[in-house]
Amino acid sequence: MDQQKLFVQIALHSWNTQIARAEKVFNSYSESEFYKQIAPGKNRIIYLYGHLAVYHDLLKETLGLDTGKYSVLSPLFLQNPDNQESEMPPVKELKAIWNEVHCDLKELFNNVAPEDWFKRHNAMTDADFEKDPSRNRLSVVLNRANHVAYHLGQVVLVKPENI
Amino acid sequence: MDQQKLFVQIALHSWNTQIARAEKVFNSYSESEFYKQIAPGKNRIIYLYGHLAVYHDLLKETLGLDTGKYSVLSPLFLQNPDNQESEMPPVKELKAIWNEVHCDLKELFNNVAPEDWFKRHNAMTDADFEKDPSRNRLSVVLNRANHVAYHLGQVVLVKPENI
Repeated sequence: MDQQKLFVQIALHSWNTQIARAEKVFNSYSESEFYKQIAPGKNRIIYLYGHLAVYHDLLKETLGLDTGKYSVLSPLFLQNPDNQESEMPPVKELKAIWNEVHCDLKELFNNVAPEDWFKRHNAMTDADFEKDPSRNRLSVVLNRANHVAYHLGQVVLVKPENI
Repeated sequence: MDQQKLFVQIALHSWNTQIARAEKVFNSYSESEFYKQIAPGKNRIIYLYGHLAVYHDLLKETLGLDTGKYSVLSPLFLQNPDNQESEMPPVKELKAIWNEVHCDLKELFNNVAPEDWFKRHNAMTDADFEKDPSRNRLSVVLNRANHVAYHLGQVVLVKPENI
């Protein structure tokens, strides 16, 4: 197999694995459990669900693949921590957003040519990229996969068992 | 830059970032805080610290680079969940193990030739590897970086702020 293609496959596998795990864990909770905190005084599941969905919607822009659709939700889920008094969109609506965002990303990712994954992302300048070509689109995706894992480790804490 | 070398750099950057973050977070806790649970009824910080150190000691074997030195700690930190009644090694001792394991890994990783990162790891057979060459040493390292992030999201919960 072409080396570039192989590496893209490895990196996207890391992303896909985390998204699949996240979906499995979030979907295992009832609607009322979405309002539980992961630990006393910390974020609720619904917040982290919206946080990941809106951050990944924005990922399309960071990668320069498309414009985000849900920037209106950024103040609620990205710019501020969870607040029990803020009005949340219904879980059902967030589920529709999550599914749409990740379906869109899947399609967008499938259409990126292997060599284009190694181009710079929109959050850095041409000059910076010349200095460090390892900070490309693929490294952003790996970084986001780690970010999903980070919050997933928190979301599982609402389960009764210790995992 | 040589492509293979670039891929390796991207993947190792993902690993190094998570290890550096983990060290920063663990080292921010006092010795007595290591005995706090990340959430009621869940693992203590000391358990997760030992869990990552021992798992990464074993990573040398999984990658076929060296033998692990701390398999004697596997029952305590890998094969069983945390148990408040089990006798833990002192935090000071675990810190020495953590540092040794990650120093060893750094040196081992530096000595792997770029093309050797794309060889199969020891947890899979030649036949399986032929079917799926993306399951190589580099994919194991990416997987372990996600695993660090997963537990790091838990360890930060002991901090008073909501992050």
